[in-house]
Formats: sequence, C-alpha cells, structure tokens
Amino acid sequence: MSNDYVAIMAGGVGSRFWPGSREARPKQFLDMMGVGKSLLRLTFERFLPIIPKENVFIVTNEAYKTLVLEQIPEISEKQILCEPSRNNTAPCVAYAAMKIANLNPKANMVVAPSDHIILKEEAFLNHISSALNFAASKSALVTLGIEPSRPDTGYGYIQYDKKAKNGIHDVQRFAEKPNLDTAKAFLASGDYLWNAGIFIWSVKSVLEAYKTHANEIFNILTKGAKHYNTSEEQNFINKYYPTTPNISVDFAIMEKADNVYTIPANVAWSDLGTWGSLYAECEKDSQGNVLQGSKNLIALDSSNCLIRTTAGKLVVLKDLDDYMVIDEADVLLIHPKHKEQEIKKLTEIVKKDFNSLI
Amino acid sequence: MSNDYVAIMAGGVGSRFWPGSREARPKQFLDMMGVGKSLLRLTFERFLPIIPKENVFIVTNEAYKTLVLEQIPEISEKQILCEPSRNNTAPCVAYAAMKIANLNPKANMVVAPSDHIILKEEAFLNHISSALNFAASKSALVTLGIEPSRPDTGYGYIQYDKKAKNGIHDVQRFAEKPNLDTAKAFLASGDYLWNAGIFIWSVKSVLEAYKTHANEIFNILTKGAKHYNTSEEQNFINKYYPTTPNISVDFAIMEKADNVYTIPANVAWSDLGTWGSLYAECEKDSQGNVLQGSKNLIALDSSNCLIRTTAGKLVVLKDLDDYMVIDEADVLLIHPKHKEQEIKKLTEIVKKDFNSLI
Repeated sequence: MSNDYVAIMAGGVGSRFWPGSREARPKQFLDMMGVGKSLLRLTFERFLPIIPKENVFIVTNEAYKTLVLEQIPEISEKQILCEPSRNNTAPCVAYAAMKIANLNPKANMVVAPSDHIILKEEAFLNHISSALNFAASKSALVTLGIEPSRPDTGYGYIQYDKKAKNGIHDVQRFAEKPNLDTAKAFLASGDYLWNAGIFIWSVKSVLEAYKTHANEIFNILTKGAKHYNTSEEQNFINKYYPTTPNISVDFAIMEKADNVYTIPANVAWSDLGTWGSLYAECEKDSQGNVLQGSKNLIALDSSNCLIRTTAGKLVVLKDLDDYMVIDEADVLLIHPKHKEQEIKKLTEIVKKDFNSLI
Repeated sequence: MSNDYVAIMAGGVGSRFWPGSREARPKQFLDMMGVGKSLLRLTFERFLPIIPKENVFIVTNEAYKTLVLEQIPEISEKQILCEPSRNNTAPCVAYAAMKIANLNPKANMVVAPSDHIILKEEAFLNHISSALNFAASKSALVTLGIEPSRPDTGYGYIQYDKKAKNGIHDVQRFAEKPNLDTAKAFLASGDYLWNAGIFIWSVKSVLEAYKTHANEIFNILTKGAKHYNTSEEQNFINKYYPTTPNISVDFAIMEKADNVYTIPANVAWSDLGTWGSLYAECEKDSQGNVLQGSKNLIALDSSNCLIRTTAGKLVVLKDLDDYMVIDEADVLLIHPKHKEQEIKKLTEIVKKDFNSLI
C-alpha cells in the first residue's frame, strides 16, 4: 500500500474564461488545450505514474460531482470531497488532510490545482517524488516554486535560500503579488520563485501546522474526526464546513510556519488564468492565430487571434488583429484579446439579462 | 379570368451574400429582412392584390424547385419554369412569355426579380396596374424606373422624357453602369432613373420585340410552341434552352426597341445587392447595429455592425466598428462591412478547400 496521496482542487468557477467556462461547467472540466481531454483529466493522469488511482482525491462542489465521475470513471464516489461552500483553500486543504489522515495516518499528500497545465511532466514528477520523500522523512511543508520567466504581477512570489540539500531549499519569505517594478527586481535578483499553489507534506505535518497557526479551522474540522470516511461525513461537512473562516492556505499556515521548503521547478507550468495565458500556451499558425475546436480557418489580414468554435465549423476572418472569437452554441463573444481582464466585469453585465448563460 | 400575369425570376445564386446565401439556398429563399418570410415569399405576396395566384409563374433552376414549392405551396408545379442552364435574362423572359402566351394570347405580364425589396407596396402596385393597362392598350415595352437617391455606380440608368401621358414617359436611352462623375451628373440632371429590371408588357408586344431584335432566341424557343404547357415542355427546354445566347433582356430588346416607356417610381426599392445594402434597409439600434436571427446582443463600444446569427444566441461584441458578423451553423464570417465587395472573391478562396460550404 502506497502512503502517497494527491488532493486535486476542482471547485473553482473560472469566470475569466466566459463564455467557454460556465458556472455549470468551469474551465477545469473543459478541453482548454484542444487535446481531447479536460484540464482535470490531464491533472489526474499526470499523477498516475507515481500515485495509485485509489489515492487520488478530488475536492469539488456538490454541483460538479457528476462531472468529476464522468471525466474520471476510474475513481469511486468516496474519493470525491464536496465542499458545501467556497471558503478558500485553507479549510479545503484541512478537510482533505483530515480525511486522508483518517484513512492512513502515515500518508504524505500533494495538493494540486485541477486547472493548471504542466508540459514537462517527467521533470514535474521527479520534483514531486523528491518532495514526498523529504516530507515523509521530517516535519516539512514543501511548496513547488516555479522559476519565473517574466516579471508577472499576477502571482505571489517565494524568496528562497540558494543553498540546497538534495534540491530542497529553505523558504525565506512569501511575497504578495508585486507591482511591476518589484516584480522586475524579484526576477533580476534570481532569489524568487512563483508560488503555484502546489504543496507537498505529510498529513501529520500539515495538521500540526493547522493546530498551531490556524486553530479555528483545525478545531471546527477536528470535531468530525470520527465521521470521516463514514456515511456521516457529508452531513458533518455540510453543517460545519461553512462555519470555517474564508482564508487561503498560504496566509493561514505557509506564511506563518518556520518549516517551509521549496523546490525550484522548471516544468513549463501555466495556471491558464486568462484567455491570454491560454493563447500563450497554444501552438500558433504563421500569422499567430490559434484555432481550437475546428481545423478550418481562413484568416485574411488577420493575426494574433484566439478562436474557439465547434467541431468542423469554418471560421473566416478579415482584418482582425488580436481578438478573441469564442463561438459557443448559445453565445458568440468577439473581444480584444489584450482587454481580457474586462471579461470578468463583462460577465456581470451578461448576468443581468442572461443569467442562464453564465 | 384575369389577363394579368407575373413571372418572378428566382434562379440567381446570390454569391455576394455568402455565407448567408449558399448555392443550395440562395438569397431569394432566405429571410434576409428578419421578418419571418423569404424574399421570394415577400415578392409572391406583393403581387397577390392585383394578380391571381394561378397567374404567378416562378422561373428558377431545377435544383430549387422543391424550395419554391415549400415556400409557395399555393402554386402548382406547372407554374414553375426550370431553366436547365443560366443564360442570363433574355432567354428566360422569352421562355416565360411564350409559355404564358400559349395559355392566354391576350396576356399582359410583369417580369419581376425575386430578391428585391419594395417597402411602399401600395404605390408600387398602382404603378404596376397603370403599366399593365397601358401595355394592354398598345404595343409597349414598359420598364419601372426607380427615382435615384444617390449617384450609385452599381446600376444601369434610364434617360427619360420629362413629358408624360398619365405618368408614362418615353425612354430616350439606356445608359450602362456609369462611373461616379457620370452618375453624379445623371443625378443632378433629374433626367435619369435606375433600371431595376422590372418590366411590364403584353406577351404579344414582347414576342414581337424578340422576333425583331433577338431573332436567334425567338427562333430557338418558338420551335417548342406546341410543347409549352404539355408534358413535353421540360424535355424541349432541357434540349434547346442551353443553345440560346447568353444575353440580358436589356441588351437583347430594350436598348434596341423604339416602343420603350418608363414609369418613374418612388417605392422604397432596394435590390439588396450586398450585405451593405441589406444593412442600409434594416432598422438599427442606437449604436447603428443591426441584429438578425436573435434578439440578444450586448454591444460594448461596438457600432455600425451587421450581425446575423441563429435563434436565441447571445452575441457579445467589444470594440468592433463597421463589421459584418455572419454566424451560420457551419460558417462564421467576421469581415469589415465596407469591404463587402471582396466577399465574392472570398468565396473563390473558400471554394478551393470548402466547396461544400459555398
């Protein structure tokens, strides 16, 4: 029996990917890369070489349980954790850790988002395996640090000690999302990594950290210790989980603990946070256009566009530069790509008259 | 029994309206105005107050016979004339005139395109009735002249004598499509009308004109005189019609005859020749956008667009000015509206790889 587990976080809404992503089918359930598999499915398969499928847990929302089972028929219903409310990542991770600890007190676990992409899977798994071994050997909270490729202001950063033991470094501090000048300085120093929200620890270590640094969450969710992995689990969670404070795992434990480590990783990672970051990851034609869902595009004097449409449809563009053309069965969006940050606001406008399309 | 007939010309291809219009379903069969009726249906209904439905004939192509019967179930198959080849309007009008003459030698007939719109129907019918009476009373070839509203270079012009008898004027000459300066001079003079391709004459007069000025067509099609309106008609037409010269009715008889008259008409006419002319005829929202096929549009900083989509679909535009967005089930076209003259050329490109979508 393996002591290695993964909890895949699949409860997000993905509103910045409207109209591709909808509340009823957020981006982790969509084939965002045009490879025939959803991001969740890609994440599940990514871990299979090192973690047995019985040890994969999916944390999501009740509304998405059926979708998860459809996309990952290899797992049983017991491996799906349903949050009754969205309370950010700290309660979510604590719940998963307690449930897994109840099954196996010697468990080591990975926490992984379901909607990121990692192109260098072998390198990624090597890092994860090292981290799992390290976490099994001592009380340690490990976070994967992504080697930054640009002064991005959309991520938190990790300042780390350049001295390493077996590729594992002490974390000196976490830095919130910086402004551009600070981000440039971080990048130039070589001392900073992006915080990707991928964690590795033993359930013992992480629960100790909660007990010390996030006592309220720990106390609320420990009350249910005897219900985890029984028929009473969901009832307990439905009643008490919503009373936990809304706080991120970074803020609740990582920024406070002194046993935090990182592994700098160069694994071609993207959090696919926006249409623009999706565009950046996709293969482009000679005019810089990306077409998903169809192979049929005629682009006349049109460049740098991201086009998503339904199978086989022919898209003909003339004089269009740097636009997104998102053609769904019930919505057609034509929007400047560089204004993608306005999509979230746009969905508020759509919501007023067309709530069912959100 | 009425002696008044109409031959509606419905054989055109409408390639400038791609991808709305397809070879298998050209524009006359489409609801181009978003009123729930095709242009052909609107044309048929327009004549019903003055011409009985038994006297309406539709000239089309074998490929469209089923479409015609679907859209005009009131007529019988015998009222549909199928051209086996596209030989321009002169052979087509001669065939219709001979077939109608065979049924009723005293017939007067209107020749009308199936893909134009006329908003002032009552005024139009008054002009047509006058013209039918005039054509019944003497040997006359009457063409409806549209009072020009702009120096359009896309139409032929009719120079006419300002002196009239009962609103009917002598035609002095026909002028080919002019250049812009000439068109401006025509407009300024007040002596010119647009030639809309709407004709009124007795079958006797028009066949005399063919005999005199277009003898080759007359001779070929007269050979079948005894077959018209029999089971042999289509066989005869299939064999001989393709041998007629490809020539327009204007060139074959109107420009040569000396008994040509016109009625200046102000009837809110458009030949809907391009997407732009369709846009011009449609009701716009406060930002100058036209939406067809759906009522659901969110246009942010977007104006002067022509949007056609499928029922109920929500279209969301941002930063798009003066574009056509034509969203069909199998094709999505996004194209600057003022470059609509390039659509025909574009279909040649599409044809190479996507012939089935033309």
